[in-house]
Amino acid sequence: MAKVNADLQRERNKCTFNIAELTTFIDGGTDKTAERKERENILTSRNTELSPVPEEYLSHKEKYENAVRNSVVLFGLVRKMQEEGKTSVTNYRDVVSGLLGSSTTRDGSPLGLHYIMFMPAILNQGNEEQQAQWLPRAWNCSIIGSYAQTELGHGTFIRGLETTATYDPSTKEFVLNTPTLTSYKWWPGGLGHTANYCIVVAQLYTKGQCQGIHSFIVQLRDEETHEPLPGIKIGDIGAKLGLNAVNNGFLGLDNVRIPRNQMLMKHVQVLEDGTYVKSKNSKLNYGAMVFVRVVIVFDMVNYLSKAATIAVRYSAVRRQCQLKEGQPECQIMDYVTQQHKLFISIAACHALRITGNKLWETFYAVTEELGGGNLDRLPELHALACCLKAVSTADTAAYVERCRLACGGHGYMHSSNLPLTYGLVTAACTYEGENTVLLLQTARFLVKTWQGVDNVKLTPTVEYLKTTRARGFYDKWENSVECIIKGFQIVAMRKISSSVENMQKRIAAGMSLEDAWNMTSIQLVAAAEAHCRVIILSTFYEEINRVTSTFSHELRLVMLQLVELYAVYWALEKIGDLLQSVSIDDKDIKKLGEWYEEILLKLRPNAVGLVDAFDIRDDMLQSTLGAYDGRVYERLMEEALKSPLNAQPVNETFQKYLKPFMQGKL
Amino acid sequence: MAKVNADLQRERNKCTFNIAELTTFIDGGTDKTAERKERENILTSRNTELSPVPEEYLSHKEKYENAVRNSVVLFGLVRKMQEEGKTSVTNYRDVVSGLLGSSTTRDGSPLGLHYIMFMPAILNQGNEEQQAQWLPRAWNCSIIGSYAQTELGHGTFIRGLETTATYDPSTKEFVLNTPTLTSYKWWPGGLGHTANYCIVVAQLYTKGQCQGIHSFIVQLRDEETHEPLPGIKIGDIGAKLGLNAVNNGFLGLDNVRIPRNQMLMKHVQVLEDGTYVKSKNSKLNYGAMVFVRVVIVFDMVNYLSKAATIAVRYSAVRRQCQLKEGQPECQIMDYVTQQHKLFISIAACHALRITGNKLWETFYAVTEELGGGNLDRLPELHALACCLKAVSTADTAAYVERCRLACGGHGYMHSSNLPLTYGLVTAACTYEGENTVLLLQTARFLVKTWQGVDNVKLTPTVEYLKTTRARGFYDKWENSVECIIKGFQIVAMRKISSSVENMQKRIAAGMSLEDAWNMTSIQLVAAAEAHCRVIILSTFYEEINRVTSTFSHELRLVMLQLVELYAVYWALEKIGDLLQSVSIDDKDIKKLGEWYEEILLKLRPNAVGLVDAFDIRDDMLQSTLGAYDGRVYERLMEEALKSPLNAQPVNETFQKYLKPFMQGKL
Repeated sequence: MAKVNADLQRERNKCTFNIAELTTFIDGGTDKTAERKERENILTSRNTELSPVPEEYLSHKEKYENAVRNSVVLFGLVRKMQEEGKTSVTNYRDVVSGLLGSSTTRDGSPLGLHYIMFMPAILNQGNEEQQAQWLPRAWNCSIIGSYAQTELGHGTFIRGLETTATYDPSTKEFVLNTPTLTSYKWWPGGLGHTANYCIVVAQLYTKGQCQGIHSFIVQLRDEETHEPLPGIKIGDIGAKLGLNAVNNGFLGLDNVRIPRNQMLMKHVQVLEDGTYVKSKNSKLNYGAMVFVRVVIVFDMVNYLSKAATIAVRYSAVRRQCQLKEGQPECQIMDYVTQQHKLFISIAACHALRITGNKLWETFYAVTEELGGGNLDRLPELHALACCLKAVSTADTAAYVERCRLACGGHGYMHSSNLPLTYGLVTAACTYEGENTVLLLQTARFLVKTWQGVDNVKLTPTVEYLKTTRARGFYDKWENSVECIIKGFQIVAMRKISSSVENMQKRIAAGMSLEDAWNMTSIQLVAAAEAHCRVIILSTFYEEINRVTSTFSHELRLVMLQLVELYAVYWALEKIGDLLQSVSIDDKDIKKLGEWYEEILLKLRPNAVGLVDAFDIRDDMLQSTLGAYDGRVYERLMEEALKSPLNAQPVNETFQKYLKPFMQGKL
Repeated sequence: MAKVNADLQRERNKCTFNIAELTTFIDGGTDKTAERKERENILTSRNTELSPVPEEYLSHKEKYENAVRNSVVLFGLVRKMQEEGKTSVTNYRDVVSGLLGSSTTRDGSPLGLHYIMFMPAILNQGNEEQQAQWLPRAWNCSIIGSYAQTELGHGTFIRGLETTATYDPSTKEFVLNTPTLTSYKWWPGGLGHTANYCIVVAQLYTKGQCQGIHSFIVQLRDEETHEPLPGIKIGDIGAKLGLNAVNNGFLGLDNVRIPRNQMLMKHVQVLEDGTYVKSKNSKLNYGAMVFVRVVIVFDMVNYLSKAATIAVRYSAVRRQCQLKEGQPECQIMDYVTQQHKLFISIAACHALRITGNKLWETFYAVTEELGGGNLDRLPELHALACCLKAVSTADTAAYVERCRLACGGHGYMHSSNLPLTYGLVTAACTYEGENTVLLLQTARFLVKTWQGVDNVKLTPTVEYLKTTRARGFYDKWENSVECIIKGFQIVAMRKISSSVENMQKRIAAGMSLEDAWNMTSIQLVAAAEAHCRVIILSTFYEEINRVTSTFSHELRLVMLQLVELYAVYWALEKIGDLLQSVSIDDKDIKKLGEWYEEILLKLRPNAVGLVDAFDIRDDMLQSTLGAYDGRVYERLMEEALKSPLNAQPVNETFQKYLKPFMQGKL
């Protein structure tokens, strides 16, 4: 291994806590760390077989071809792990959509949706025979599936989908059609040129009646030749901001016939004669949506850990300007403005991961209750997943850009891996529920809860709506994390109550409920966000206080500093809300600012240690600026030299265009 | 021309003002509109010769080759305009770095720096003989130049540049060297494979003494063969988030000798014997920096106009969800949250353009004063340009992303042109002075001004620092634009005064000035930003009130609504600052929110008209979502079909990788 940059080494030497102890905590135990490391070893074991030209130099088509090549290597290893019994639902999540998926196949994978959506859909919506028929082939990748719901003209409003599946009792088949341009399926990953099967979501028509949207297994391509089947119009949707290796596709269906048993029939059936037998419980589908949104929260943590690692290490290596005339140039991390840009990302990684874990636990608890027929906590869980997905993706996108910009010009280089990371993160603000739409769903739950606040027993995450109003809950401001949490609770409660009040006023003035909702929606979105901030901050605070009781003194201290940083940072960001809701004066705010500056200084010596603890291997980080050894400039040059443009000293356009132009001939 | 989308046509029908009247105002007069249109006609006249495959499908190398091909077409037309006397400094700015430059050569041009930096540097820093020698050849592109200042290890801190130019009196030459890896020049546009000459900024050594940084004209490549000359190591720095057609390059110099008269000697000289003759006025260089920063503000306006046009038109065409059960799906622009996302961008285009114009005027006035030896207003101008560049780029980046995200999934498609636009805009946050660094420069001026506030006559843009403290300046809050401006002035004044106070406290406690500055820098940055918001808002307000007195009643009404929107939007964004600085209570804030919602509703019917008035041709907008006819879905599909991946129904990776993998053989 090359020599580590001296500045970076010095940072490591002065780290006050045991890095391995923190890594173990992040992983969830020494066994989990070992498991992760083994998984990483396996999944990177064939990295030498991957294509040598960095993806950023390839054309759109080459990126796809590269992704297929790399994906079969990666998923071949996943299949091997499956065969050896080394996958469970938990690490499956990590393998497919987490850190690893995005290292071997940096910009997404055309096989991702097969694992994340195709198989789970059959598992959740297929009956036993269907599962027996399809899952084994899908599991060992004899068939590759995609999941086609979104259309060119419809994303958010699923009820408005235009694709139809009409039952024909004479042949016992469904006939699928995309009757308009806007009904073309658009976006599904792997659909373009990779998948040969697909779940298609369509409006079911039987006996002349529309029964709403249902899922159908449709074969797209011949298993031998991969040629599209008759009636299938299919292709790539084109280049995107990111995720260019995902092979997002479009799909037109022209009288495509499939047998009756290819409608997924676990919860609903069309009998041979076309009789529609309804599902008992339509809410069961929420489970899958919640699951995906929890996975997204963990994705965000992974991406943010990467960005923070890159920006912090670079800021230790990069020296620029003199703090004092005549002194050597200083590490840019010594600038307080730089600390202000970076350290919140470190704290947010922990805050979001811990809140995600909590949501994950709740998800399992509620799923078990569901099995027993108890649906009480489902609305709460759904509301929680909605706002947490929205806030975690929006925050992470902002943090990642902040990290990228903090790396100056070099952060703009693809080889820093920050642009790609941003592309992946910002996509999550839109997919699986657009953020504003999701926050309004949370708001709907909060409004309903608020309207019953005095009569109904509140579920845990909204209990504060009652307690904040109790006498003695809040007396006067003090600069403590506890008080900030209380303040945030009051802010959220007031935003919710004031939204409800405004809506009622509008309705009383003659507006329809829907118009009043729309007119109040800016406030409602803000209320849902405020609620989410309460959840994240209080969970982070409580969990860190709980778990660190068994930590070494040094690590406990640092973790508590991170909680403080997170709380104070957000208190200052939302100071306008606090000023409107609680008694906080100029002097308090001034002290809050000073407190913030102090925590930055305290965290400064441990910044590199804190990102080292994320324990991201160089071959997964894939960043010239962030590698463990800090050889920033050497790596930048090495990567530049891989540019195919540099293979020739003179590009052929000189003779063809430039020279004639310079001679005035063009 | 294809039929216009019915929803979009309906929007146009209900527009209350005369669109052409607004366009004329934006251009600056009917003659200017005509001039712009003629220029656009000329510069797009050879568009059919441009390469047919959309840039986003090309490899990094192909993007460069495509850019050279397109650039010689574009700049051939520019040269023709020059020959016909159709360029002046004003439209030159538009031609090279504005709207047009980014349409024909969407992702930047390798010839851009030749016009923006190489020629101006010779003009500003070269003596008469040097100008006579070099400018004619540069002007008609017989030589192509770049400008190499930034190094791998140095950007912000110019004094720290490591490249050396050592005068050798025996041969009357300078010997140029990049003695370390970190001293390699890195970033200059066109440097990689395009330019054959370059201005190199280096530390001048003569008679054994370092005289600081100076500029040198260095030949890089043979004029006939384009081969790099001996001692020149040169190439492409690799792929970036955006600007991939710019051909940013690196440059290493190994004992490269140039004649003495290739040091630019307008302000400074090295005599034949090596004697160094100093410049009389080193501040003269500020002029060029200010110029570039003003140009950047106008660039931002152009990009933002594009993004707003795209997002607003798409939001009129896109229908999604029902506001009321049973009704048809509604245009997404009818959602108040969508209006909240979009309309601020329209207002900001005008606010920033008008402030940019003002800065431009000031720039000319001060430049004239400089000619007369009066340097009084230079520090103010410099401070203004710094903060305006920082705030306009940061705001525009945020607005553009907001527009992109408001277009949902389709905004993530490259064919929307929103991802590329963001890539170009966010780059400006870093180049020509990193934003935080620039805000701290403005802060330095503000602190100095504050310290002399009672003794010195204040320059116009900071006069409010005195007036805000006068008795009767502010009594009580009222919800008006005037009061918001006053509020912002008090906020800025208080932020500056409190920063100074905190610094003094720290110094009194024994801290060095530099450490106190660093510890206070988060506040200082906020103070500079607050100052800039005062300038933008008050300029926008005053100018619109002034000029609209001759407008038609309908247009005047709409323009005043935009000023209100801008003021209220930013008042609500900075409500925490206002609460800390002026007497504004809960009821005021509530009313402010209602006011904001009302303006959104008022602007809603004119939204499409407002972006139509930006008058951006389809071939310059280059967006599937934003074209004038609103054929969104048709264009999305048409662009997708151009993907080279769609040329074959089965990609060759199926036989090579996918099939063997599916059969378990890989």
